[in-house]
Amino acid sequence: MDFNSQTTADGVVESSFLLGDVPGVLWSPVSAAAGAPVILMGHGGGLSKRAPGLVARARGLVAGHGFHAVAIDAPGHGERPRPGSDQELVARIGAARRAGGPIVPFVDRLNESLAERTVPEWQAVMDALQTVPGLEASAFGYTGMTLATAIGVPLAAADARIRAAVFGGFYDFGWVTEAASRVTIPIEFILSWDDPELDRPSGLALFDAFGSRDKVLRAHTGDHRHVPASLAEDSNRFLARVLTGVGG
Amino acid sequence: MDFNSQTTADGVVESSFLLGDVPGVLWSPVSAAAGAPVILMGHGGGLSKRAPGLVARARGLVAGHGFHAVAIDAPGHGERPRPGSDQELVARIGAARRAGGPIVPFVDRLNESLAERTVPEWQAVMDALQTVPGLEASAFGYTGMTLATAIGVPLAAADARIRAAVFGGFYDFGWVTEAASRVTIPIEFILSWDDPELDRPSGLALFDAFGSRDKVLRAHTGDHRHVPASLAEDSNRFLARVLTGVGG
Repeated sequence: MDFNSQTTADGVVESSFLLGDVPGVLWSPVSAAAGAPVILMGHGGGLSKRAPGLVARARGLVAGHGFHAVAIDAPGHGERPRPGSDQELVARIGAARRAGGPIVPFVDRLNESLAERTVPEWQAVMDALQTVPGLEASAFGYTGMTLATAIGVPLAAADARIRAAVFGGFYDFGWVTEAASRVTIPIEFILSWDDPELDRPSGLALFDAFGSRDKVLRAHTGDHRHVPASLAEDSNRFLARVLTGVGG
Repeated sequence: MDFNSQTTADGVVESSFLLGDVPGVLWSPVSAAAGAPVILMGHGGGLSKRAPGLVARARGLVAGHGFHAVAIDAPGHGERPRPGSDQELVARIGAARRAGGPIVPFVDRLNESLAERTVPEWQAVMDALQTVPGLEASAFGYTGMTLATAIGVPLAAADARIRAAVFGGFYDFGWVTEAASRVTIPIEFILSWDDPELDRPSGLALFDAFGSRDKVLRAHTGDHRHVPASLAEDSNRFLARVLTGVGG
């Protein structure tokens, strides 16, 4: 994990890194408690590790809760080149969207493929963070909707280092639903009640599939680009409650 | 509104009152801010104004947020005699429950009738509280599941003094769904995902019916007798956010 730049603002240290060919960002408190939880921040489809909403939530987790937060670019996102096979599916999603046709079959294939490639990348990031001096990471959380849920659910099913997760905005696709049934950590699921691109019954079925005994669905009016700030704060408190035992 | 006894513990003043033939309890901070919001606390079917869960939530709203909280016994509950027509429906619900048969038709009829009688009682309580010296009540919130939702939804539809409400654990019955469509204040709806007596699609349909632009569904595992404490705290923060502009 090669750290290549660092800035500090508002009590948050922001460090860019490269791990193999995966670029990432780590946000940390200026004075971090030993063993403070690390929250893996997934980005949505077409976005990146520096999407403004993601950065704001990461800074809130660090400044408000003393956590570390980390983001990476998924393949074909941010600084990473897009393979031709991804490009073809992205083009099909765009064409279907413009034609008012169903995007779901292409979202399904693209997201499953991206999840297969990104899960081991997140695992390598966790391996590396466990060896960073001063971090001593032991508990990891995960948060992210849409593409980040497609990646995060199989990750949480595969890796016991993830102790709590916030998902949302995704579908009852067989491969992700099967992975959800193997997730038993506390989870929250954010459902955008009126999203024209996210089928409501499909989202409810995915929430239902999680094997977790401690799970909460939070549904809000509007689409997934307009999750209310109060719900993000609720999710932050949930991560704090599970990962540090504070606030509940 | 005749106040007839008062006790103080843990910074909360608890006052019993009688308004006509309706007995109630008012919980207030020892030093209340002028115009502090008043939360109307509904009780579930078969319970009363002194149900332990209700009292704990009321005390939390007063001690944690500086609100007033007030509860009354619905007809046939707590200190109030049960009319024969209610008794017949209660007996039918009990018999259906023991036989494993459907309770819903009897719950529908009993709750609609109780709502018709209790809405004007709550309105009389609000009238009275607006004249209590030192209270100067201007903003009211409402919270309560099951029977309290059956009563609270028509109340919120009928009375603009209610500015925010937390409902839950109820059905898509025509009369309550129609009232929900006329509710436009911010609301939250708590849905118990695995409640054998609360049909999930019916609860989702009732949430969907609310006319509010600002509405959130919170679903939790288990039944309505086991709402997680963290969800109750989320609801308290929601009431504070809407009624005082604090916290988001």
